[in-house]
Amino acid sequence: MPAAASELPGRGSDFLQLAVCDLPGGGKAEWLAGRLRQAIADGRLAVGSRLPPTRVLAAELRVSRGVITEAYRRLAEDGHLEGRRRGGTVVVAAPFASPDAGSRGGGRASGEATGATVRAGQGRPAQGESGTPRTTSGTPRTTVRGTVPPAEPDVPYSRTSGTVPPPPPSPLSPTSPFSRTPGPDVFDALRDAPATVDFTPGRPDLATFPRTAWLRAERAVLAELSAEHLGYGDPRGAPALRRAVADWLARMRGVRVEPDEVLIVAGTAQALTLLHQVLRTDGIDAVAVEDPGSLGGRQHLRNGGLATPPVPVDEEGVRVDALRATGARAVLLTPAHQFPTGVVTSGERRRELLGWARDGGLILEDDYDAEHRYDRPPVPALRALLADRVCYMGSVSKLLAPALRIGWLVAPPRYRADLVDAKRFNDLGNAVLPQLVLARLMESGGLERQLRLLRRRHRDRRDAMIAALAEQLPGGTVHGAAAGLHLTVTYAANVPDAEFAAAALTRGVKCQPLSWHRQLPGRPGLVLGYAASAPGAIAEGVALLGDTLRELT
Amino acid sequence: MPAAASELPGRGSDFLQLAVCDLPGGGKAEWLAGRLRQAIADGRLAVGSRLPPTRVLAAELRVSRGVITEAYRRLAEDGHLEGRRRGGTVVVAAPFASPDAGSRGGGRASGEATGATVRAGQGRPAQGESGTPRTTSGTPRTTVRGTVPPAEPDVPYSRTSGTVPPPPPSPLSPTSPFSRTPGPDVFDALRDAPATVDFTPGRPDLATFPRTAWLRAERAVLAELSAEHLGYGDPRGAPALRRAVADWLARMRGVRVEPDEVLIVAGTAQALTLLHQVLRTDGIDAVAVEDPGSLGGRQHLRNGGLATPPVPVDEEGVRVDALRATGARAVLLTPAHQFPTGVVTSGERRRELLGWARDGGLILEDDYDAEHRYDRPPVPALRALLADRVCYMGSVSKLLAPALRIGWLVAPPRYRADLVDAKRFNDLGNAVLPQLVLARLMESGGLERQLRLLRRRHRDRRDAMIAALAEQLPGGTVHGAAAGLHLTVTYAANVPDAEFAAAALTRGVKCQPLSWHRQLPGRPGLVLGYAASAPGAIAEGVALLGDTLRELT
Repeated sequence: MPAAASELPGRGSDFLQLAVCDLPGGGKAEWLAGRLRQAIADGRLAVGSRLPPTRVLAAELRVSRGVITEAYRRLAEDGHLEGRRRGGTVVVAAPFASPDAGSRGGGRASGEATGATVRAGQGRPAQGESGTPRTTSGTPRTTVRGTVPPAEPDVPYSRTSGTVPPPPPSPLSPTSPFSRTPGPDVFDALRDAPATVDFTPGRPDLATFPRTAWLRAERAVLAELSAEHLGYGDPRGAPALRRAVADWLARMRGVRVEPDEVLIVAGTAQALTLLHQVLRTDGIDAVAVEDPGSLGGRQHLRNGGLATPPVPVDEEGVRVDALRATGARAVLLTPAHQFPTGVVTSGERRRELLGWARDGGLILEDDYDAEHRYDRPPVPALRALLADRVCYMGSVSKLLAPALRIGWLVAPPRYRADLVDAKRFNDLGNAVLPQLVLARLMESGGLERQLRLLRRRHRDRRDAMIAALAEQLPGGTVHGAAAGLHLTVTYAANVPDAEFAAAALTRGVKCQPLSWHRQLPGRPGLVLGYAASAPGAIAEGVALLGDTLRELT
Repeated sequence: MPAAASELPGRGSDFLQLAVCDLPGGGKAEWLAGRLRQAIADGRLAVGSRLPPTRVLAAELRVSRGVITEAYRRLAEDGHLEGRRRGGTVVVAAPFASPDAGSRGGGRASGEATGATVRAGQGRPAQGESGTPRTTSGTPRTTVRGTVPPAEPDVPYSRTSGTVPPPPPSPLSPTSPFSRTPGPDVFDALRDAPATVDFTPGRPDLATFPRTAWLRAERAVLAELSAEHLGYGDPRGAPALRRAVADWLARMRGVRVEPDEVLIVAGTAQALTLLHQVLRTDGIDAVAVEDPGSLGGRQHLRNGGLATPPVPVDEEGVRVDALRATGARAVLLTPAHQFPTGVVTSGERRRELLGWARDGGLILEDDYDAEHRYDRPPVPALRALLADRVCYMGSVSKLLAPALRIGWLVAPPRYRADLVDAKRFNDLGNAVLPQLVLARLMESGGLERQLRLLRRRHRDRRDAMIAALAEQLPGGTVHGAAAGLHLTVTYAANVPDAEFAAAALTRGVKCQPLSWHRQLPGRPGLVLGYAASAPGAIAEGVALLGDTLRELT
């Protein structure tokens, strides 16, 4: 039900059922922004509709005009609204509600297929444009592009022959995490290795963890909590958090679910463990994976006894023809921001994927860092388009902290009861207090504030890393920097990346070799998390990487 | 190195390396009590040694005499110290440090074999004595004894024939949790059933959850936490909690382990899930279980593909001859306070069990509520006696709240690496913040304070329940009331217990039928948790149980 701009003044607040009387703590502007955001996500405020002038809505709601201005400002910051001088304030994108809504936002979402493309330079990357690499100083040095080149030569995967054999062990120190084919403890080994600069991907800026807000929410939870909540709870998770997650998914990811469909889990790692139990019962013995694709995800599936045939990723996303060729009935994907290449699945490729799923395929969608989009609104989740064939996974690991171990899994109805059983047997359900604290942070807008803060800080850090790489790794190519917490850099030098990473570690810089995340052969590279390091440390670490590579070549 | 009483004055504080300068927040008396407790557990203060007079130690430590008095009082309350007028204050028991230390404590631990025996009456049960049932009013009405009678007739378990078939379904409402053979969701169904009085066993007095102390500890943790702690952590658990648990186990359960041997898990449920993965890899396909024995434990093992042959429990504990006859290589036991009968494994039976284990058997020791002993110090864990053949499991579910989902697993070295892998694949490790908060509560003495508070409150509640049962269920027999959070009552009437429990639920009282926890046939009964209900609610609930049974017979 689109609301024409002319309808709103005079009855805007009625239409949106706004009433300040039920205003919770946390600020009127925050409250209003939340209600408007909800209305945009619901479709009550359609793209193109004009909001009431601030003075009109302020009078309606009997609040100061500053409250309205601030609420509009926040939504504009999120990319939902745009101020048009004469046209007033207009809804420009309901970016999370439908697959093509972004394109209605004044060209903001053009170039979706190569959405990860940004350009290096000495300053900030140009935003929201596409084209050939350039630097602002005019001298091309480091190429920044949307994707890792496909494997050359392209090795076809055969289900009978299993995966491509791992490369021969490199002549590294046996104590190095890089000295052998990475086993399940390789991430522990890397974490425990001493380093001065840590570019391990997958962690947000942990220094900004909202300690005060968390403690405040915990105090409120403890004050209100009834004793029964401290007993054995619903293995699906606390109802309050399931409601908050359903709301978050609708608003942020375009995924409409009932709270009862949400299963709270201990992160995506556990979601995969629950899934492999259930999928095997369903007769699925292989889950195809992206290549390059997350080593951790692959390890989890393999641990569950599933084969993980690799499917090449090109600049539009996973190759659906190759996916079909594997014969696998399920695939693990990171469509919003492919790990580790950063490719955003193109519209055409999405259509192909959905066709594959409609033919009986099952998509495990790991939406690990989709909210962290810098240059335009995030693309909606595949789950928003095809509920019956997508198991959707998300977590707060990239929004707040991996140490919280809270995530969610939304599965098609046929798997739901078995997944609840699996969760019950795994741990009887997540711990309740952190769930309730998180629910409060989500409902109060605290989590969205944190996301806005992270986006700003991460963008600065990304820019610092791209600038440093341009300086230190001339000839390298940066991939997937339009979103997320990491980027991938490939380089021309003939140095195996495990050797590069190992040598970097001896100089005190921690990162992951791209080859960890490959089953198929391909160019060497490094996966560099920038989000958890301050710009100064980033410059220092990248300089050490440059020294390392120069020494090795 | 025993410290004779004469050694202590003048150099007591040196000997114990006491120095108030490193005093943390939380009170000098608490600090001193903790150090003394540690010294008793370590053996630095041996049983029989005399502590310095309060005035001497106060002068040594330059604190007020009240601090010393208070510290001694707390240790006396725990059963570690005893004031003997002329003899001064003497260490009477290091009850958790060695299997027979309790017997040195002036006869406090006599009657160990039937440790669960208490006697009903109208007032508090007599403490620490044994004998035939009586009531203080002289009229025997309800028998209170240490064990549930063994199965009659005793049905031998045959591994090839599997378990005894379940009883035919009772003619109950299909929506009742009691209407069918209990499946994995039966505890959820019971939890969600509305009731006015909830006797579901397994929950402590949740109203006393130390909210203020928890929040204070969380504030301190958040203030001190480095950002790295918020990333992906050690799957074995936070080092601070593993240290605190190792310390707790030494002090409270006589179990000496290095922090590195402790695996933090999401409660005993998860410990069983991790174990069944690892045991199956080790070729173990059956884990014998006590009968009666926890339905939940059995369901977890079965879910892992393990057979669960039942072994009868008599008044001394699990029958080791029957255990041998099953041929199972492993057994799940609750030796400190058998669930649900409350039997404390006798000394003789322990020796038999350890013999079985030395012959190649593996004991999974679920030490679920061992700390909750009312009338004498808890018996030490089997793990303290035979480290190589015992997988020890404990949790804070009965000390603080099940909703925290924190427990620990200490396994023999041969299983340790595989268990860490299993934990990693399950969830990458427990959430970090609650671990650090709990570590603080353990280190500061907060958890021990909570345990003391719970013991007092639980004892009152237990007494209220026994008194009410004597009134309302004449002819019934109460089992296992010397410890724990629940008791079991068997009754003479010819009413199936599932039917009894179902009828009670329609009157608003929630409890578990004993038959849920049996594979072998046996007398009907109810398992009644008293810890989470106030004395008034207990009286009300038991009166409704009495009404129910009268109506059914």
